[in-house]
Amino acid sequence: MTSFTIFGTGNMGSAIAGIVSAGGSSVQHIGRETDATVSGEVVVLAVPYPALDGILAAYADQFAGKVVVDITNPLDFETFDALVTPADGSAAAELAAALPQSRVVKAFNTTFAATLATKTVGGSAPTTVLVAGDDAEAKALLIDAVIAGGVKAIDAGALKRARELEAIGFLQLTLAVSEKIGWTGGFALLP
Amino acid sequence: MTSFTIFGTGNMGSAIAGIVSAGGSSVQHIGRETDATVSGEVVVLAVPYPALDGILAAYADQFAGKVVVDITNPLDFETFDALVTPADGSAAAELAAALPQSRVVKAFNTTFAATLATKTVGGSAPTTVLVAGDDAEAKALLIDAVIAGGVKAIDAGALKRARELEAIGFLQLTLAVSEKIGWTGGFALLP
Repeated sequence: MTSFTIFGTGNMGSAIAGIVSAGGSSVQHIGRETDATVSGEVVVLAVPYPALDGILAAYADQFAGKVVVDITNPLDFETFDALVTPADGSAAAELAAALPQSRVVKAFNTTFAATLATKTVGGSAPTTVLVAGDDAEAKALLIDAVIAGGVKAIDAGALKRARELEAIGFLQLTLAVSEKIGWTGGFALLP
Repeated sequence: MTSFTIFGTGNMGSAIAGIVSAGGSSVQHIGRETDATVSGEVVVLAVPYPALDGILAAYADQFAGKVVVDITNPLDFETFDALVTPADGSAAAELAAALPQSRVVKAFNTTFAATLATKTVGGSAPTTVLVAGDDAEAKALLIDAVIAGGVKAIDAGALKRARELEAIGFLQLTLAVSEKIGWTGGFALLP
């Protein structure tokens, strides 16, 4: 399948690695080091939004020509009441602007780690990874690797749809933090 | 229970009427007439976004003191690629600004009519109505009436969260129009 480099070794990075590994893709993990050689064709930045700048400072050159997957939810984590990105933008749009030589894709920000690991939302509905991006081949690479790992994935449209994906991720986080849903639940997309 | 006035006799108005009626609430329907007397304690504007202005012109005075429910998804229906509201606003915020004597609530914009009528999303997951608003009593009135009718409903936060609800409604419509989901499917919220 595809070769992945996953930045971040938290629960999201681990869950994403588990899925694509199960589908036959290879996975390189990069933690906090700043001098690694990025080997993957697809780079997943499975880190919190505030960590993106540091990764870009160390690795942006190596991301040229690669598919770069942004999974962040750029919340104000002090208030849980707003996004820190401009209202007409998105974290993914910012990343794409910073990486003009890469094909940036938004994905995994609407699926809590537990729903990726168990492949179900709320214990019953199948988990679906929503993927937005402007490059059809880049999206297909990721979607195919996820589906091969046993999790549903769909093309949610152009990269500008990251704004809506980040709105879903934001609302879902507010509902979990206020205990209206659990961290094994959230939004499931059903056909 | 509660007395409702529902503007709009399309599939959304009918589905909402069916739910609250089943829960024991009374329903007055108002169609295109502009001289009706609004009797309901809760007014549901089950009309497309472009129809709101006409209803306000005819009925805004009568909405004073009432709970007014906005269900609209303010899409550009020619392109299906953008909302027509400002990026930092929402249709619900506009309505609240136009109706300072009313308690405006956002609801029903993330649930297709068929998922309200059948109480299930994708034939399996329970339908949940997401309700946002700044007045706790107003939200509780609506949530209780919906739950009494056999459909789940939750408080999704303050009226500013209408922006995220409208993002979900927008994305869901683009997925249905592009046939990635059906009109009986969409986003289900699972605990």
